[in-house]
This record gives sequence, structure tokens and C-alpha cells, in this order.
Amino acid sequence: MRLRATISYDGSSFSGYQVQPNGRTVQEEVEKVLTKMHQGTFTRITASGRTDTGVHATGQVIHFDSPLTIPPPGWVKGLNAQLPADIRVLAVEQVADDFHARYDVCWKTYRYKWTLEAIPMPFERHMLSHVPGKQPDVSRMQQAAQALLGEHDFRSFSAANTSIQDFVRKIYDVRLESHGNQLHLVITGNGFLYNMVRILAGTLWEIGIGKKQPEDLAGIIAAKDRGKAGKTAPPEGLYLEKVGYEEL
Amino acid sequence: MRLRATISYDGSSFSGYQVQPNGRTVQEEVEKVLTKMHQGTFTRITASGRTDTGVHATGQVIHFDSPLTIPPPGWVKGLNAQLPADIRVLAVEQVADDFHARYDVCWKTYRYKWTLEAIPMPFERHMLSHVPGKQPDVSRMQQAAQALLGEHDFRSFSAANTSIQDFVRKIYDVRLESHGNQLHLVITGNGFLYNMVRILAGTLWEIGIGKKQPEDLAGIIAAKDRGKAGKTAPPEGLYLEKVGYEEL
Repeated sequence: MRLRATISYDGSSFSGYQVQPNGRTVQEEVEKVLTKMHQGTFTRITASGRTDTGVHATGQVIHFDSPLTIPPPGWVKGLNAQLPADIRVLAVEQVADDFHARYDVCWKTYRYKWTLEAIPMPFERHMLSHVPGKQPDVSRMQQAAQALLGEHDFRSFSAANTSIQDFVRKIYDVRLESHGNQLHLVITGNGFLYNMVRILAGTLWEIGIGKKQPEDLAGIIAAKDRGKAGKTAPPEGLYLEKVGYEEL
Repeated sequence: MRLRATISYDGSSFSGYQVQPNGRTVQEEVEKVLTKMHQGTFTRITASGRTDTGVHATGQVIHFDSPLTIPPPGWVKGLNAQLPADIRVLAVEQVADDFHARYDVCWKTYRYKWTLEAIPMPFERHMLSHVPGKQPDVSRMQQAAQALLGEHDFRSFSAANTSIQDFVRKIYDVRLESHGNQLHLVITGNGFLYNMVRILAGTLWEIGIGKKQPEDLAGIIAAKDRGKAGKTAPPEGLYLEKVGYEEL
């Protein structure tokens, strides 16, 4: 039967999600435990998409197939008992045999978190992005972000080293939220290009501190030129928050 | 001149505060940087007290002497530039030459944090205490905690392996605070015995889940017997929050 699991991980000690020759990855750790639970029969997992080194997840979704007849709470308990402490399984449910964690994605929500503290507490160093210097004007960022809504060619916000052809993505919702001394960018879309949220975060920050103007954003999108956008914001502020499998 | 610094540290990668033969310590890291800033002249620091392996600080206070004429913001900047990322200097100020970070302490506030989530997010594993099983009744804990107020012999809440003679301490304030899915014990006193806050936290938790009664606490104090109190709660939930140098 096919199972769908919602997982959370602290990206700070991983070389990203996807298995690779060097470095510890989330996929490898989960597959190792599942393979052990299946008496050595290799069990592959498929995620909604990969996340980069240092990037976190609070709601990554994976699927895998298993002949074991374990009820969902047993899966959660069993996996968490064996997984390293920086990966937690939050929920498991049985799904249709043709469910696919990547192909069936309708939307994803990412959250990018900055701390606005002058000297951030040391606990936050892997969890929040910290940009020393000027404080951003959140209303400028909020105003600019509206230009992202809808369907656009987001080539300006894609890492250069990509082999994909189609840069068109649809943004359903984008918000700047103040949480005490943190600022969050919360963005929902039907898909995101490689590094897209981090480049958007870096660009919006530059608008916030006055290095770029809010009205520049439409032109940056139209330029289809990575060089026009801002710097790629660091990975530690980024969280894959939710993956949706129903149309919004 | 004598300087007083307020520092924060993430205790998860330290073998406690105090220098010891094996293991990385907060004191050693700070002294290393200060000694470098003094061209190799060893510069000792003195803290308000030590903290154990895994215990955090958001407001530890230290003092040290220096002939350097650096203004306070320069000290903060210079130290943070060279310290490892899990120690941050929050403030530095010049103090009287006879100020002593340990002897002059009037009170300290500790905060003990539990997560009440069934499956805590992996980010919180070094930052919050998690006790699987029953949820505590906070009002029972709050009621019991009142017995701690005032001056008592706290021998029942002291680690067995201690060489001290005087177990009398005065508790000025104790509170249970709910913060979303976290429960905090915040306690202020003129001093704390070795492991005292962690044993109090463990005992209050047992009262919260019904293993002990709120009215038992007065008797546990009166018994002056470590065996009567609850288990020592784990270090990752404990934060040294504030050290006061004026009478309350």
C-alpha cells in the first residue's frame, strides 16, 4: 500500500534533502530507517521536491510503498523512534496507490524568517536570517510584493545553474508578517524555481532598506534577467511549510 | 579598568560554563578571545556562577579587567566578531573596580521551558524539554509552587554530590507561564543550589501530571531529603535569564 508522510527537519546539519555522494541528506536518513523496518528491502521515498543545504521543513510531504500492515500512529511512532532527532515524522496516512508526492502537488507555501534583533540570540543562528545594518520598512516590502501575484515568467528569480525550460509559475498569495522581532515572508504558489524564494527574499529586503524601490519589482520580473534581482538570501531563514494536493 | 558583560550562549555544544580539562566550555572560549585581544596576556573572566552541560543563558553576567581603552559598543562588536556563533555578547559596561560578578549577585532569574507538543519540531530538541505522555495541569503546578516562596532549607532540591554546607535560599518569585504550546517555570531567588531549578522543575511536573499532590511540596521541602523530590529535569530546557546586582 502507498503511504504519505508529513515530515519536519532541521536543515542545519544536512547537505539538503536529496541523496548525493557526499554529505548527510534527509532522504538517505529516512530511506535507511524504512529499509531497516522492511528487513533490508530497500524502500525508496519520493518527496514533493528537494530542499537545499541548510533549508528547513515544517511540512515536507513524502510518499513510499510498503507491504507492512501498520496503522498510521504506529508508523509515526516507529519512524520517530529510529530517525535521528533532526527529522520528525508528524503524520502518516494511507493514500491511493496512484498518489504521487511530487507530480500531484497543487501548491506549496514557503516561509522566510528574518530576525530584526541587532544582536540575535545564539539559539537562532541556524533558524533565522540576520542581515546586519539598516532595518527594513515592511510596508515598502508589502507594497512591492503585490507585483508577484498571478502568473509570471520568474526567470529573474531563478538560480543561473538550472536546466529547466519553463520559468512560468503562479503565485497565489504573498504576505509580510511581523512576529515580535521577526519578519516573515510567507508565499504560496503552484511551484517555485531553484532558489526562487531566497532570491525573492533578498530582493524584497533590498526594497525594504531603500536600496531598490517598491515599483522596481514589476520591471525586475519583466527583465527576465537574474542580474536585475537582489542577492540570494541565506538558507537558514527558509522553511518549506506546507504542500497542498487540492486545487486552491 | 573593570568591565561587566552580559552574555548569551547556546549550551548545547558546551560542556558547561566553567573551564575543565576535557570538553569545550564557555569560559574557555571567551578567555581565548580576550587573551587574543590583549596580545597574548591571559585575561581571566569571572561569571555570576557556572551553568551545566546543555544549559543555556540569555543573561549571564561576567566581569574582567583590561587596560584597553575601548568604548562599550567597541567591546561588544570586537568580541562578537571573534567569538564562536554560539556565544553572543549582548552588552558591555564599565563598572567600579570592586564590582564582582559572583560575590555581588543579589538575585538570579532562571527560566525552565517545556514543549507540550506531542511531536516537538526538530528545531526545538536542544532548546526545550519534552516529556512524552500525560499533559500537566498547570493550575496544580502554580498552586504547589507557592510553597517555594520565602526562605527555606532547600536540601531536598540539591544534587547529592555537593560540598556546600548552607542549603538556605530565598525565593522571591515563582510563576508558571503558558506561551502557546510551551510551558515556562520562571523563578527568582537570591541563589540556587546545584541542580536546584532542574529538580524543582521535575518535581513540579510530577505534581502537574498527578504523580504527586500540590500539597506535598511543603512536606518535601521540610524533609530535607533529595529522595523525596522528583526527578532532575533535563538541561536543555533551562535558561539563566537574568542576574541582578541591586536588592529587590
